[in-house]
Amino acid sequence: MIIVMESQASAAQIQHVSSKLQEKGFQVHLSQGIERTIIGAIGQRTQATQDLFETLPGVEKVVPIAQPFKLASRQFKQERTRVQVGSITIGGRDFQIIAGPCAVEGRTKYLEIAQAVKEAGATMLRGGAFKPRTSPYSFQGLEKEGLKILAEAREITGLPVITEIMDPRHLDEVASYADILQVGARNMQNYFLLRELGRLQHPILLKRGPSATIEEWIMAAEYIISSGNPNVIMCERGIRTFDSYTRNTLDISAVPVIKQLTHMPIIVDPSHGTGKWKLVEPMSLAAVGAGADGIMVEVHQNPSEALSDGPQSLTPENFARMVKKIKNLHLLLNNNGEQ
Amino acid sequence: MIIVMESQASAAQIQHVSSKLQEKGFQVHLSQGIERTIIGAIGQRTQATQDLFETLPGVEKVVPIAQPFKLASRQFKQERTRVQVGSITIGGRDFQIIAGPCAVEGRTKYLEIAQAVKEAGATMLRGGAFKPRTSPYSFQGLEKEGLKILAEAREITGLPVITEIMDPRHLDEVASYADILQVGARNMQNYFLLRELGRLQHPILLKRGPSATIEEWIMAAEYIISSGNPNVIMCERGIRTFDSYTRNTLDISAVPVIKQLTHMPIIVDPSHGTGKWKLVEPMSLAAVGAGADGIMVEVHQNPSEALSDGPQSLTPENFARMVKKIKNLHLLLNNNGEQ
Amino acid sequence: MIIVMESQASAAQIQHVSSKLQEKGFQVHLSQGIERTIIGAIGQRTQATQDLFETLPGVEKVVPIAQPFKLASRQFKQERTRVQVGSITIGGRDFQIIAGPCAVEGRTKYLEIAQAVKEAGATMLRGGAFKPRTSPYSFQGLEKEGLKILAEAREITGLPVITEIMDPRHLDEVASYADILQVGARNMQNYFLLRELGRLQHPILLKRGPSATIEEWIMAAEYIISSGNPNVIMCERGIRTFDSYTRNTLDISAVPVIKQLTHMPIIVDPSHGTGKWKLVEPMSLAAVGAGADGIMVEVHQNPSEALSDGPQSLTPENFARMVKKIKNLHLLLNNNGEQ
Amino acid sequence: MIIVMESQASAAQIQHVSSKLQEKGFQVHLSQGIERTIIGAIGQRTQATQDLFETLPGVEKVVPIAQPFKLASRQFKQERTRVQVGSITIGGRDFQIIAGPCAVEGRTKYLEIAQAVKEAGATMLRGGAFKPRTSPYSFQGLEKEGLKILAEAREITGLPVITEIMDPRHLDEVASYADILQVGARNMQNYFLLRELGRLQHPILLKRGPSATIEEWIMAAEYIISSGNPNVIMCERGIRTFDSYTRNTLDISAVPVIKQLTHMPIIVDPSHGTGKWKLVEPMSLAAVGAGADGIMVEVHQNPSEALSDGPQSLTPENFARMVKKIKNLHLLLNNNGEQ
Repeated sequence: MIIVMESQASAAQIQHVSSKLQEKGFQVHLSQGIERTIIGAIGQRTQATQDLFETLPGVEKVVPIAQPFKLASRQFKQERTRVQVGSITIGGRDFQIIAGPCAVEGRTKYLEIAQAVKEAGATMLRGGAFKPRTSPYSFQGLEKEGLKILAEAREITGLPVITEIMDPRHLDEVASYADILQVGARNMQNYFLLRELGRLQHPILLKRGPSATIEEWIMAAEYIISSGNPNVIMCERGIRTFDSYTRNTLDISAVPVIKQLTHMPIIVDPSHGTGKWKLVEPMSLAAVGAGADGIMVEVHQNPSEALSDGPQSLTPENFARMVKKIKNLHLLLNNNGEQ
Repeated sequence: MIIVMESQASAAQIQHVSSKLQEKGFQVHLSQGIERTIIGAIGQRTQATQDLFETLPGVEKVVPIAQPFKLASRQFKQERTRVQVGSITIGGRDFQIIAGPCAVEGRTKYLEIAQAVKEAGATMLRGGAFKPRTSPYSFQGLEKEGLKILAEAREITGLPVITEIMDPRHLDEVASYADILQVGARNMQNYFLLRELGRLQHPILLKRGPSATIEEWIMAAEYIISSGNPNVIMCERGIRTFDSYTRNTLDISAVPVIKQLTHMPIIVDPSHGTGKWKLVEPMSLAAVGAGADGIMVEVHQNPSEALSDGPQSLTPENFARMVKKIKNLHLLLNNNGEQ
Repeated sequence: MIIVMESQASAAQIQHVSSKLQEKGFQVHLSQGIERTIIGAIGQRTQATQDLFETLPGVEKVVPIAQPFKLASRQFKQERTRVQVGSITIGGRDFQIIAGPCAVEGRTKYLEIAQAVKEAGATMLRGGAFKPRTSPYSFQGLEKEGLKILAEAREITGLPVITEIMDPRHLDEVASYADILQVGARNMQNYFLLRELGRLQHPILLKRGPSATIEEWIMAAEYIISSGNPNVIMCERGIRTFDSYTRNTLDISAVPVIKQLTHMPIIVDPSHGTGKWKLVEPMSLAAVGAGADGIMVEVHQNPSEALSDGPQSLTPENFARMVKKIKNLHLLLNNNGEQ
Repeated sequence: MIIVMESQASAAQIQHVSSKLQEKGFQVHLSQGIERTIIGAIGQRTQATQDLFETLPGVEKVVPIAQPFKLASRQFKQERTRVQVGSITIGGRDFQIIAGPCAVEGRTKYLEIAQAVKEAGATMLRGGAFKPRTSPYSFQGLEKEGLKILAEAREITGLPVITEIMDPRHLDEVASYADILQVGARNMQNYFLLRELGRLQHPILLKRGPSATIEEWIMAAEYIISSGNPNVIMCERGIRTFDSYTRNTLDISAVPVIKQLTHMPIIVDPSHGTGKWKLVEPMSLAAVGAGADGIMVEVHQNPSEALSDGPQSLTPENFARMVKKIKNLHLLLNNNGEQ
């Protein structure tokens, strides 16, 4: 890190900062300019040491240099992480298409849609058993019953299932039914939950919080990895901005950014990311163009009857049409890159 | 709610929406304009019904009319809620000043600062035992030991203590030591936690999430109140915006807005809200001007040695000076309003 | 528009609003609910009438229903606008690639890069003669000399040129040299400038302001069109959000949204939109996937010597490689859609 | 500035950056760490040099150290700037209250409201003759006729008048009628306009753009000051955030921040900043608490008949009541600070 001293900082203040740095194990390099002195500090920075130096007398600001994440970074691990779920690889050559309704609403309907999306080309199934809802008066999910339906759908279709985990107390139960555990956007910084997930070996789909910076999102992954579970899949699902035409602003640039900074796979959720089904297909194709490893989309037999997030769900027909375009596009880009 | 039909909607589509509305128990009013038809629907709207109608064929958009919160609203309860903690009232005539270090770092230091802020005029003590930290490598709090120190500080000073609860599994323990339980900004939408807190009778300080709208914040309070606990104190602590000079943008206008929409008291946290101790005093005085019921500020003997959030902490001397100004200001405004 | 009355509104207040509406030429529809009265008003809404009713006694809020833009909307004009520049059509079957350095820095260098991007597949040339710079101490452009160099580059390459107009007083001069006039993001709401551009017949490339909503951006186009010039090309160049890893957040979803709401062509600027050359290729491919009509990118012989915006410029080699991928992708998507 | 090299940067790359720096007149300090090399560069940084080094091979990022503004900074000028308008001083001991309708709508009405706000304690008059409106179909101001009415109101009341300038072509005319020229939020980065205003000696009220950072806003002031006019008054009027309950989020913390970074006076506009008249009084009192030098508020005889921005206007009665509270508060704080 670099410590920028105030232009009026005294020699004694500069001396005090320097000895404090050495005391904390940093190597110190002084740059005495005309206007001000700058101190380069080489060593292991933590938030705490940065905070400490920011309040010493004569210090104007502390500039962190190294990225705060380690295990998630490409410096730490050059080759890309491929997350394995049964015979399926996320982050490999294939493009993964996770589909299903927002919430599991009932057995018959779920098994029906699971079959339909499989036929249309989905490679994994999604469906919420526990639903985070802004209002306490909204449908909150079928809970345990929903988990059982998901497991049954897996039996029938042979596709892995992914579902959200919201509370550390549900961990054993959810983990016993689902193949991939999803951390929702609202829980991205629920650190006790992240640590618990780090003790599993299940793949974790980590959604970006609606106001999380790229760095904070990667740090949430670092919580899981540093607790012992390297199987993290990042999921961009839109950030909160001033514009309200779409529900969120889907940050497609997060795809190449995560690829450049980390070794983890990344998928895109255009259903939550836009909140409008008419935008799901163009944004899915955009995700393919940007280099994503997959998408996660909502499909519902009858979107207007969905108990949760209807307006962003595709019909099975629209979904099938979209899957064809995605496959062609992904094939072309992959050949482009490798032939 | 109001259903705006597309300009090309057919008579059959309009008819379909109308009968669906009646089926769901709504009273229907049609307005046939030159360009389009608008349907007024009077009845109990939920998110689910709104979503349903948004996807019916021929519907352009659904406009919710009534506020989604009930128990938290001023319509529901005209008189202001006064939250009682021992002999102290939050939301009454007195201005509350909650002070202490960000984290409890050790027994001697905490007891010393507790005594110092009491002498300077603090009316409650703060201090984190469990700390949510962006990095897994940062100090995470003294946990149980921190809770015990807080309880001891209460014994000695006679002031109530407030501390953060992060995980439903800690509930009994934290509730047995603290007077007020704080929901941190990152957990504002941790709905399982909110429901659990609704089963207590302890006052809950509910911090606004960094990207929570006013409505989402009030809905989080609604979770607690509708689960049985009416003792909610709102706490504005800054929202996330594009500007990075301050750590967050402290939304002072949230104070009169919460006062106008709800019956709950609201306090302001200028330490987290700005991230810079030099801004704490002017923003505290701004909070008084805007009509807040109190402030929560960080005070540390030696901010540059704090293990967490040093740069935003006041020294006891600066704190004492500020308290005097706050008291004068609050006195003047209160007399203004009532004499 | 719809007028939502307060729940305690009196009969006299409701009557007053109704007669005021009729006086202003609106047709009135009353919906008397249990909790509150809602008034539907059919007629020509302006911002002024909306403001008026919002302040009448007993009114809680006014909900606008119709879009405020007319000439720019798809309702007004179903077929897509194709903007013609010589033999080139923007908004037709071909994907347009506008390339060149951020600023025109000198004659020899500009002619050289113009030739290079043409050979690599660019269909139009870009280059700033007047540069809006945050700092008064930064390079502000070659002004008239820059315009002449652009005109010379057009002579040599046969490609149309596009450049920014910043001040109405430069209009005649810039219009006499350039084929397309660009309104920069900072001037998107410079209404006097927009009106002047409406008096020309030159195509206008209208960049989205960094904090402009979709609606405000379309309203800026409406200024130009309603002043007489229908040749407007929309350009998404990133919006300002809380995240600072990229210079702006490129809102790719604006592409399908503009296509759905208006009849105008839209292109994407991934260079300004991300501020990092390594993100330009993936975001360009994302733009193709989302259905854009073209891209505008910065290319510089030697990005590290550029006088303006070097870090976001491609080298001619990287640009050439990218153009090939774009063309393949666009071809595939176009055939997909039409065969 | 500081140049952070990539961890894999070669010795040749480091050497190249160093010699380039020296060539550009920088003094170079190398810090060779275990993981990476950091180069401190002491000298006159411009955006262009920063951009240059950001693209050199082996460079990870360039961290600017010094503030980019000079003439506006407190380092440059320690004592506070007091802007004089006739006998009135902005930035001195007195709190200035600028009041009037959003737009000048007619002679009789304007003279009447001018008289009313004067009696209630306003120290300056506001009123728009040229109005920037999102829609081309909204009222755009009385233009020259409005300027004449403003001048007449000054004659009658003896109060200085402030009005907005939108186009450099109107400069002479507006400057011949108004005492203070206002740069609106949409024009904060209209650099040609700023330079022209720098050639006048009239005080300039510079509104913050809705998405301008603190630094960009100060840089806009730097444009005016460096062109020759030191009489700049900053005006906070709300920034654009994700929350839509208020029209903008009034950033009260900008008041102490501007005071700490610059020598210029700052006033607050709570009318545009919130968009709701019920929030104007609490936010005005907050501005006083935060240390502002004044406020600018909208007052209208009959807000529901205003042609522009009615919902945010106070009635003369509410205004008078508020002025009394403001004066008491300001008096108390001033005595606090100085006795």
